Amino acid sequence: MPKFMDVHHGMTGITEEQLKIAHGADLAIQDDENVRFEQAWADPESGVVYCLSEAPSKEAVQRIHERTGHPADEVHAVPLIV
Amino acid sequence: MPKFMDVHHGMTGITEEQLKIAHGADLAIQDDENVRFEQAWADPESGVVYCLSEAPSKEAVQRIHERTGHPADEVHAVPLIV
Repeated sequence: MPKFMDVHHGMTGITEEQLKIAHGADLAIQDDENVRFEQAWADPESGVVYCLSEAPSKEAVQRIHERTGHPADEVHAVPLIV
Repeated sequence: MPKFMDVHHGMTGITEEQLKIAHGADLAIQDDENVRFEQAWADPESGVVYCLSEAPSKEAVQRIHERTGHPADEVHAVPLIV
């Protein structure tokens, strides 16, 4: 299954608790789109959040993020991994 | 040790071979700055590459990338991880 990296901007000041809640909301409904969110990294200072997932398409990733109220600003297929 | 995500833009058309060579060049000298590059993901279509590392500072990450000829466009500390 393809891997995706999606990016959220404007999350300046995000706390660990908020990141956990947002990620947990995605995990709770990811099966609806056959998405598997693997990890998320956040920089509260610049407000950027990266999410790595495995999914059938970038649209599937975005649909989950939209339903949980935090649409991604970018979703990139990342077919090359080292 | 803090974690960092750095981002390279403009790598449109990057191949698996090129990504491996670039990553390998970083690995070869990372000890000089006590950096440990963990993984890299590339999207040849949009030309974006993400590198996850553990390092003493973002400057240390950037110094390695500069010496190997591919300075990052952004380096973000990612203290929050889920």
